[in-house]
Amino acid sequence: MSTYLHHETHFQSSDLLRDIVIGMADGLTVPFALAAGISGAVAGSAVVVTAGVAEIVAGSIAMGLGGYLAAQGEAEHYNSELVREEQEIIEKPQAEMDEVAELFRQYGLTEQHYGGVIDGLKGNPLAWRDFMMRFELGLQKPDSRRAGQSALTIGGSYILGGLVPLAPYMATASAAQALPWSIGVTLMALAVFGFVKGSFTGAARLKSALQTASIGGLAAAAAFVLARAIS
Amino acid sequence: MSTYLHHETHFQSSDLLRDIVIGMADGLTVPFALAAGISGAVAGSAVVVTAGVAEIVAGSIAMGLGGYLAAQGEAEHYNSELVREEQEIIEKPQAEMDEVAELFRQYGLTEQHYGGVIDGLKGNPLAWRDFMMRFELGLQKPDSRRAGQSALTIGGSYILGGLVPLAPYMATASAAQALPWSIGVTLMALAVFGFVKGSFTGAARLKSALQTASIGGLAAAAAFVLARAIS
Repeated sequence: MSTYLHHETHFQSSDLLRDIVIGMADGLTVPFALAAGISGAVAGSAVVVTAGVAEIVAGSIAMGLGGYLAAQGEAEHYNSELVREEQEIIEKPQAEMDEVAELFRQYGLTEQHYGGVIDGLKGNPLAWRDFMMRFELGLQKPDSRRAGQSALTIGGSYILGGLVPLAPYMATASAAQALPWSIGVTLMALAVFGFVKGSFTGAARLKSALQTASIGGLAAAAAFVLARAIS
Repeated sequence: MSTYLHHETHFQSSDLLRDIVIGMADGLTVPFALAAGISGAVAGSAVVVTAGVAEIVAGSIAMGLGGYLAAQGEAEHYNSELVREEQEIIEKPQAEMDEVAELFRQYGLTEQHYGGVIDGLKGNPLAWRDFMMRFELGLQKPDSRRAGQSALTIGGSYILGGLVPLAPYMATASAAQALPWSIGVTLMALAVFGFVKGSFTGAARLKSALQTASIGGLAAAAAFVLARAIS
């Protein structure tokens, strides 16, 4: 039982963590690369800040609402599959029994092993439905508050992340002067973020730090070169 | 068996579809809103195109590589859990048996029902491990080619989506003149995209079309207002 509870907790905190990671990874990277790209083509910081703020607003809304709709879509998908499984159990119990048997046969089990489970589920259609949802379809009941929470977490993390690379452009009138500061603080922030992310997800922390910083650096370099080339 | 195969196919195509949706939803929305935002503050299309291209480059790399690392992280997570389950089955078989029992007890089953399954799994440790991976942890073996494929699909969809709102700015020198065209073609593209997405995911298609167009419109309006306010 304690193991089960442990896993449940693990699942929930990883949802929150995943939302922060999704928002902050892009929030640190895209406005940073955009600002660097514009710096390669335009002299004044004002344009960079305007574009950067527009990007942060657009990105946080797109990602936040995108997260909201994704979570809502998951909940709708769960409910429609629930109704379908319920009907199938009533209308085609034999086919559903075959599906349960097939699940167990994949693990080398025979009817002698899983026959009892089928007998038990037949006596309790609601439990049978829930069993199919989780074990056949791999779906778990979504938390109804998750959609809104997910939207705010992703959007907020994006804004926080996006303000880091823009800060130097807000402090200096020359984009060329702000650029190295923006590169410095953002690569540092990306590395710290990657390190912390690695600690939570169990990945190697230094490797994770290097990866997030590399993606940001690569995106910024590519944006810089292309924006300069076309302007 | 055919049902099982059907579900497998469904899972794979939904991975590809999910990647296209992730890339294109943001690709249509963020560069669109960014371009609209800059149009609210700057007169010439050239700056909008420069910023837009920088954003598309940055966004496609950040999202593509982000998708790559996410898929790679999933594979690493799967492998590390596989090793852990294997060890636990060897070192603490009783605890693992309790976990299997607990899984079944949630569905109102008693030892009389699930006893056979435990007996069967005990005789086949590798199948037992795979059983725990899927049914206790809810993990499925990730496809090793998925990370690279996912990166290219997400990045490519982002670029394709992002070129739609920028096209009018490339055709006209005045940002103010290009803006209404950009709004028109992008809202139309977002609605078509939402409609097609709804057809695949089983959501109501008109509702889906309205939702994706609304997010894009809202993000663009907010970016326009904020960029104009600070410039």
